[in-house]
Amino acid sequence: MNFIEVIENKRNKKALSEEEIRFFINSVTDGSVPDYQISALLMAIYLNGMSDGELSILTDAMAKSGDRVDLSYIDGIKVDKHSSGGVGDKVTLAVAPMVSACGLTVAKMSGRGLGFSGGTIDKLESIPGFRTALSEEEFVEFIKRDGIALMGQTKNVAPADKKIYALRDVTGTVESIPLIAASIMSKKLACGSDSIVLDVKCGSGAFMKSFEDAAALAEKMEHIGRANGRSIYALITNMDQPLGRAVGNALEVKEAIDILKGIGPNDVTELCFIIGSFMLLAGKKSDNLDQARQMLESSVKNGSALEKFKRFIENQGGDPRIIHDPELLPSAKTVITAKAPSDGTVTSIDGEKIGTAALTVRAGRILKNDVIDHSSGFVLLAKTGDKVSKGQALAEIHAPDKETAEAAERQIVDAYGFSGKPEAKKLLLGYFDREGLHIDQNKY
Amino acid sequence: MNFIEVIENKRNKKALSEEEIRFFINSVTDGSVPDYQISALLMAIYLNGMSDGELSILTDAMAKSGDRVDLSYIDGIKVDKHSSGGVGDKVTLAVAPMVSACGLTVAKMSGRGLGFSGGTIDKLESIPGFRTALSEEEFVEFIKRDGIALMGQTKNVAPADKKIYALRDVTGTVESIPLIAASIMSKKLACGSDSIVLDVKCGSGAFMKSFEDAAALAEKMEHIGRANGRSIYALITNMDQPLGRAVGNALEVKEAIDILKGIGPNDVTELCFIIGSFMLLAGKKSDNLDQARQMLESSVKNGSALEKFKRFIENQGGDPRIIHDPELLPSAKTVITAKAPSDGTVTSIDGEKIGTAALTVRAGRILKNDVIDHSSGFVLLAKTGDKVSKGQALAEIHAPDKETAEAAERQIVDAYGFSGKPEAKKLLLGYFDREGLHIDQNKY
Repeated sequence: MNFIEVIENKRNKKALSEEEIRFFINSVTDGSVPDYQISALLMAIYLNGMSDGELSILTDAMAKSGDRVDLSYIDGIKVDKHSSGGVGDKVTLAVAPMVSACGLTVAKMSGRGLGFSGGTIDKLESIPGFRTALSEEEFVEFIKRDGIALMGQTKNVAPADKKIYALRDVTGTVESIPLIAASIMSKKLACGSDSIVLDVKCGSGAFMKSFEDAAALAEKMEHIGRANGRSIYALITNMDQPLGRAVGNALEVKEAIDILKGIGPNDVTELCFIIGSFMLLAGKKSDNLDQARQMLESSVKNGSALEKFKRFIENQGGDPRIIHDPELLPSAKTVITAKAPSDGTVTSIDGEKIGTAALTVRAGRILKNDVIDHSSGFVLLAKTGDKVSKGQALAEIHAPDKETAEAAERQIVDAYGFSGKPEAKKLLLGYFDREGLHIDQNKY
Repeated sequence: MNFIEVIENKRNKKALSEEEIRFFINSVTDGSVPDYQISALLMAIYLNGMSDGELSILTDAMAKSGDRVDLSYIDGIKVDKHSSGGVGDKVTLAVAPMVSACGLTVAKMSGRGLGFSGGTIDKLESIPGFRTALSEEEFVEFIKRDGIALMGQTKNVAPADKKIYALRDVTGTVESIPLIAASIMSKKLACGSDSIVLDVKCGSGAFMKSFEDAAALAEKMEHIGRANGRSIYALITNMDQPLGRAVGNALEVKEAIDILKGIGPNDVTELCFIIGSFMLLAGKKSDNLDQARQMLESSVKNGSALEKFKRFIENQGGDPRIIHDPELLPSAKTVITAKAPSDGTVTSIDGEKIGTAALTVRAGRILKNDVIDHSSGFVLLAKTGDKVSKGQALAEIHAPDKETAEAAERQIVDAYGFSGKPEAKKLLLGYFDREGLHIDQNKY
């Protein structure tokens, strides 16, 4: 088969055959095709698109390009959860022990995040002693005994996706919904779960700014998963401002503990219940979303979710005393407050600007080898809709030194908007499952 | 400036600014941009196009990426002629001495051709002793004394085009009319002529199969030339079958001599008069096409064109006796005839198949370093519209040995079609000049 003909076919808006798609991914994986041919094909895919059928095969081929995780030693349905990412998103930290307390096994392998704030792995590593580098034996032991474990990704998962992503990043082909869907789903397919709950964020603080784009991505991913034998709920959730109040690794662990204690901020607690409900439904621990939500609320009220989190920390070498004594988490040398420049109502908080400020205080990393400061970050004291008077504290800034704290302070104040009307948006905007889009979710 | 942003702009269907286009070509020329970014941009240009304004700047930037030829030592208007290429196209060989005999200076630098049959340089080199590797001093001397010289390209003309063309060739981005127009015109602009006559061929034997595509290319090239201060006639000519009867280097030289003697095949003689007329018009040696044509016909009738060709050969070291004794040209070891498989009328001759047969007998080259056999080729004895009876000779095959001759014989017979009705098409289908498209050329 000739790679140039594959490029020409996609350039001419033809659907690629299964053979052509597998040839493409095999050639990427074994390095037999030069980058300049891959990038020409990626641009043709970007501009001419791919059908659902092509996309399912592409994703399967990418998933099979490297190691695959075998979770068959776990009884019952394995449910994975994925978020498209957002500033202050600590949902995994809180929802994993909740659903585990409700009987669903959580066996998660995570990559290390690049971006505004750390990934789940980075957040957990802010707990003194916590190890994410588990052996497979430990991982299996914890899962079998306590139904919960989380480790860093050690396998070579979807190497074709890695190579293609690196090339997309430098050839203007990142913002392609089909290619984004295939990239995310190839890793999910390789990770061995039967069922997947996707949280596609939408709004000014998310990669997908409009509901239409987020829904298009959610629909594609649901379809890819279903075509490859997985059951999927693809949620579209609102991300117009950072989630909860805490941004930064140790600060987010503390907020996750608050959520598990039932004293966390409303929005992020609510999102945990929403996502957790879909996970319990997917894992057949409940028949309907109402019942699932009650189970989750009970797990918080009766302390079983917090107890599960404690066991999880202990298993992986962390200090469980942080649950009742958050002062044991790393704390920043400098803490200052950003103050409101005038009287008014907060009408918006720009997630990207908060994210950039998080990089300023080193709560996130830009390059793979950047060292994260686990103690840094922010607590957003005022959120959208709150009235503030001039000089009132908008946010606490936790930073390694006065200089970065003050630089972040300017960025934080700049992120707050005080004009116009705050839009009250529900959290769950809709979701896709095998029956299509559901948008009439008034109860959430 | 950031190359990824340039890619994104074209991907998003924006017109690139002059600064962006010059940055693109400078980055290609100095090697500061990786091939995978160039190919992503080329695919975006292929699919989203370029405006006339963008294209003029792109072509100018490519023309200025290397050496430029200075023809200012020649008095009067310098006219260049370019053909998009076709099997049996020996027009330059005959038209150059004709227009030179009519007072127009011909100072041509040619590249060596890749493809079915050799380029003009290869054809001339089949003349014993002929040198195309002239010093610049010789070139200028011949032009000043006799008004005609042709040499191989020694300068580094439009290196950005070379690099982009090589990449287009392997990334499925060859068949882009804007990119083809820019590629051809960048070399023409760098070669220093004031005026250019372009012969864009159209039909089954040409790169452009339809009139619409050929006209689109002609229009783009005329516009690019005009926007860069050149005067251009962009002709669209019919190429439904090979031009004339001879295909192959020495055989085409012989046919060119026949044209200059007034005994060449009608179609190719006619095309020489057409193209020559536009050249005389462009060079202001005549006010109108009718008068120009009469001048050219006279130059053949009174022998001045043939005399000019003789002088041209002598100047460049060739044996002028070939003009009256074509036996002095290299002749093939094996000559056989391909015969008609049945009674019938020739309704088509597939130019691509004839071209492939030419490669079989080594009359053309596929790779840059392939050695051409100057004596090889074909004389097409039957052309479209001719009645033939079974066993009648369709073509003479000149080959280095029996084996290649017989392989070419099968290809030649296969190239002839005998079904349907032969379409009688005029040669000049239309032309573009500053006033737009002229298609009512009934006289030709």
